[in-house]
Amino acid sequence: MEIGWIGTGIMGAPMARRLLRAGHRVRVFNRTPEKARVLAADGATVVADAVEAARGAAAVFIMAPDTPDVESVVTRIEPALERGQLVIDMSTIAPEAERAIAARCAAAGASYLDAPVSGGEGGAIEGTLTIMVGGEAEVFERARPLLEPLGRRITHMGPAGAGQATKLANQIAVALALEAAAEAILFARESGLDPARVLEAIGAGAAGSWQLANLGPKIIARDYRPGFFIKLMRKDLRLVEEAAERNRLALPGLKLMASMFNTAGALGHDLDGTQAVAAALDRLAVLK
Amino acid sequence: MEIGWIGTGIMGAPMARRLLRAGHRVRVFNRTPEKARVLAADGATVVADAVEAARGAAAVFIMAPDTPDVESVVTRIEPALERGQLVIDMSTIAPEAERAIAARCAAAGASYLDAPVSGGEGGAIEGTLTIMVGGEAEVFERARPLLEPLGRRITHMGPAGAGQATKLANQIAVALALEAAAEAILFARESGLDPARVLEAIGAGAAGSWQLANLGPKIIARDYRPGFFIKLMRKDLRLVEEAAERNRLALPGLKLMASMFNTAGALGHDLDGTQAVAAALDRLAVLK
Repeated sequence: MEIGWIGTGIMGAPMARRLLRAGHRVRVFNRTPEKARVLAADGATVVADAVEAARGAAAVFIMAPDTPDVESVVTRIEPALERGQLVIDMSTIAPEAERAIAARCAAAGASYLDAPVSGGEGGAIEGTLTIMVGGEAEVFERARPLLEPLGRRITHMGPAGAGQATKLANQIAVALALEAAAEAILFARESGLDPARVLEAIGAGAAGSWQLANLGPKIIARDYRPGFFIKLMRKDLRLVEEAAERNRLALPGLKLMASMFNTAGALGHDLDGTQAVAAALDRLAVLK
Repeated sequence: MEIGWIGTGIMGAPMARRLLRAGHRVRVFNRTPEKARVLAADGATVVADAVEAARGAAAVFIMAPDTPDVESVVTRIEPALERGQLVIDMSTIAPEAERAIAARCAAAGASYLDAPVSGGEGGAIEGTLTIMVGGEAEVFERARPLLEPLGRRITHMGPAGAGQATKLANQIAVALALEAAAEAILFARESGLDPARVLEAIGAGAAGSWQLANLGPKIIARDYRPGFFIKLMRKDLRLVEEAAERNRLALPGLKLMASMFNTAGALGHDLDGTQAVAAALDRLAVLK
């Protein structure tokens, strides 16, 4: 199938690569062109403008950092959209903005899905992402074969924006589960225990989580190489805060985590992995 | 083997029952005698005083709610302790107090282990508890066959008190992972999503945890029947706060969770399960 892929960053590049390997013809565009060019080796056609990626493609994928980025991509490709074309936004952006974008694409005759993902760079490379989809059920069924190379659990959550809302719920759970791991490890270390042994002892029980199992060992090793950037988590939690405010929700744990990740950013960890929130904790919580 | 079991509450009773089924002779004592009497049907000998449970037993187990309870049990049984006897405290109490108790038992010639557990009533019934053990390695090896009917993961963590310190690290992780589930579910519901579908979509990915998988459905159903009491979690987090203070740690997530569980208690949920923290969240966080 003829595919346009817009946005080839830490997540977008390996995802586009998986569609290439699944046998699709993929035209890729990225704002910073070098990041798109690496995909030429995998058979991608690198184009110089988003609209060139979109024009005539059966499906157009967007994987951009934030709401304004997706809005400007859609503004750019809108004139080229055709009836029957699929537009699938896999970015994490505001659910409300996504509903407006979906309406714009529908007005242009295209079928739109919001399909944000969870699972970080590892999940993108291995095609094991969690994909949470909003949009019409019929469009979801049509898009499913294109999503299958990318994710392991692919769920239709409801109408436009429902994928984004699910992703934000996911990020609440991710952020607090990460703090659970970070504080338990810090407490264990400062109590004179071997933190690795503590993970082994408690990881299979009621304290167990994906975050503890996957990021716990990195926290212990102070390995902050990114699977998912602090900077992007800060943006995601800002989106959660805005959506919570709109729904008149005061989520205390989420507020704390927005502050913790902002502090990690302020301490210079924006391009480190989310587990670097433990480094912020080390700086803030150890009174020695 | 001749065993004394002191404390047959929500956890202690099913644990003692598993030792009876493993073929041991068990003398049981409980402060509220009715709770011990139910074990007679399983073949236990019900005794009227802790010291009668301890006297002549090869191993004496203690499963009491809090530090002062264990201290008063030890004071009561101390005169009856003999060289070679094992005393295994499976309660969750302060690590520092536990070290002092271990020293008292050692002075009386007995071998002492702290072996707190995680996994709630379900884990106690099924014998799948996580058991975190502090004490001498040789004593741990001697006790292991007695612990095996009770737990699935049984780990020697270090000297006296190390089991308790590990349990407190476990409770930090449990409390924050539970909040992760509660806030994600509340956000999903208030965003108009089907929370059960959200759990299905995100539970296998980076947001996944034991708490989300096991207590998430109960939170959604507002089923607050206890697997582990709010009241006991409040006590555990108080122990964490005291230990953190002693280690000069300011753990922000833990502080928040101590406050959340106290609020749940204040709202009348002390004898509900820990998942009732979501009920407190419903009261506090929904501004409608």
